[in-house]
Amino acid sequence: MQERAFIQHIVASMKDQHSGVTAGIGDDCAVFNGISNDEECLVTTDMLLEGVHFDTSWHPPFLLGKKAAAVNLSDIAAMAGTPRYALLSLGVPDCYDQSWLTSFMDGLLSQLGAFSCVLIGGDTVSAKRLTINLTIIGSAKKGRAVYRNGAGEGDGVFVTGPLGAAAAALHLFQSEKFYQLDQAQWPVLVASLLEPQPQITTARLLEQYGHVTAMQDISDGIATDLSHICAASGVGAILQETMLPAHDELRKMCQVTGCNLVDFQLRGGEDYELLFTVEAQHTPYIAEKFWENHQIKLFQVGEIVAGEGVMLAEPHGRSRQITFQGYEHCSR
Amino acid sequence: MQERAFIQHIVASMKDQHSGVTAGIGDDCAVFNGISNDEECLVTTDMLLEGVHFDTSWHPPFLLGKKAAAVNLSDIAAMAGTPRYALLSLGVPDCYDQSWLTSFMDGLLSQLGAFSCVLIGGDTVSAKRLTINLTIIGSAKKGRAVYRNGAGEGDGVFVTGPLGAAAAALHLFQSEKFYQLDQAQWPVLVASLLEPQPQITTARLLEQYGHVTAMQDISDGIATDLSHICAASGVGAILQETMLPAHDELRKMCQVTGCNLVDFQLRGGEDYELLFTVEAQHTPYIAEKFWENHQIKLFQVGEIVAGEGVMLAEPHGRSRQITFQGYEHCSR
Repeated sequence: MQERAFIQHIVASMKDQHSGVTAGIGDDCAVFNGISNDEECLVTTDMLLEGVHFDTSWHPPFLLGKKAAAVNLSDIAAMAGTPRYALLSLGVPDCYDQSWLTSFMDGLLSQLGAFSCVLIGGDTVSAKRLTINLTIIGSAKKGRAVYRNGAGEGDGVFVTGPLGAAAAALHLFQSEKFYQLDQAQWPVLVASLLEPQPQITTARLLEQYGHVTAMQDISDGIATDLSHICAASGVGAILQETMLPAHDELRKMCQVTGCNLVDFQLRGGEDYELLFTVEAQHTPYIAEKFWENHQIKLFQVGEIVAGEGVMLAEPHGRSRQITFQGYEHCSR
Repeated sequence: MQERAFIQHIVASMKDQHSGVTAGIGDDCAVFNGISNDEECLVTTDMLLEGVHFDTSWHPPFLLGKKAAAVNLSDIAAMAGTPRYALLSLGVPDCYDQSWLTSFMDGLLSQLGAFSCVLIGGDTVSAKRLTINLTIIGSAKKGRAVYRNGAGEGDGVFVTGPLGAAAAALHLFQSEKFYQLDQAQWPVLVASLLEPQPQITTARLLEQYGHVTAMQDISDGIATDLSHICAASGVGAILQETMLPAHDELRKMCQVTGCNLVDFQLRGGEDYELLFTVEAQHTPYIAEKFWENHQIKLFQVGEIVAGEGVMLAEPHGRSRQITFQGYEHCSR
């Protein structure tokens, strides 16, 4: 990889001047001043490693670039923030050529651009395996970021979309069965994994609505991610198995393959839907309100209770402990 | 590696509350609001990879942690900024145990703490090889950051310290000769490589002095780094070989090993000294002034000229082109 040539390509693809950016790519630091006095800065960073978090043998470069951005944008969404500036560190092995890199960058910049987030700096190095680290700086009105620690007893627990599809697609990609099946047979599952959608817009509407008490994105599976909210808030939660939303395609895939639907829904990582809690007195009305006003579907999946940990209430009256039983990056 | 246990260790080692930090480690994003209205934000990110940028077989974890911080702090210094907040992404293979990680983190936090820079977030993942990405956010009074593009014809070219020591130490570590020599014989060279000092304080004094026209840190060797200043400023430069400062220990090492002194000085990376240009009329006085007022040594090494590229004037009247002839991370 020619580092300077690659940086010049990136700079060339970002011709526009952006308000607030005093200096972008090409100096020791990027310089920005677009955060106003009544705002706070949000900042998040994510490392994605080949062979751990992604596999370029089935993840096309444009979609991988989009996903690298989406994963980080999802963290900004989880706080109800507005993404502003991004920095990319990229470690590239020799086997990735200029056209692969160009496609990757085009995907990354298109996903950032969809939310007016500007790439202002980064680092490119030679590497043994493809290594991606993205940092995104966002903003929120002072005191309006939504944290994990505000959930209270009686609050409703909600998600913004169906669960488990990305994990099911990963299972298909990693299993031999996949090659006997037709990839086009599972378009929704495959898209969920390769091209997740950061819920920036829904998150900001939820914050404006004013009765959301805690929020995060679902990256490690709802069982683990809800455990984080419970631990931070000093409460417990009960999820209702029958209320967990799933794509029809995921139900069909589980019938065909014999996989367990609820396992995918609870423990499946990388959904990047929002998980949030709503004050008890507003819980019965929020889903209808969001559908009527914004045509956005919200799904209640459980309730915050006193105590600690996350329980799953099963259809026939039994319940079981599922605290921190999600997907663990470490275990792969 | 137990990700949650490791994060808890980091949080526990940072008991103090820090002004400006609304939320640190433990939510989707860190939140800060300590940048005032008359300041700009500086932000820089660096990726360090095992086998490319460092070798843990001879780099002790405490010093590697310090260096990871120092390299990024050096980018803030290069803009004359004040470091404020840091985010660390860490990819860790199973073979690094808790005591190695604790020592690494202690080194990193001690170096950040020396400049009141607070670790507010990050990401930890499992990896095949140790992978470090640090992002630092700093600040500077509006309009007072020092860029690379201000060098003008006639300006003096200066550095803050001797050149080539880190590269010489790397050569020793990588050569078999090293094991026949006594490591304690080269304490200055070894310290230059393992424990570089970010020039935050000197950089801010230089900015306050008011006649510095361009600045960056020396990470890839002065030949390459001065080429960046020349390209950004639309000028050329002549370095005087006889004016390049070197540690006595480096001169001795070159005598003992037969290595070329000037090659180390010009092309040696990782010095992390500052390289800067000074208005022509102040060039004769700045070194004396900084020594008298601050006991800081500055070394003039050349002059900015019309044209482009970097030339080296050799002792006997010849000169040669050395534009972009430094150390290249990519070529290793």
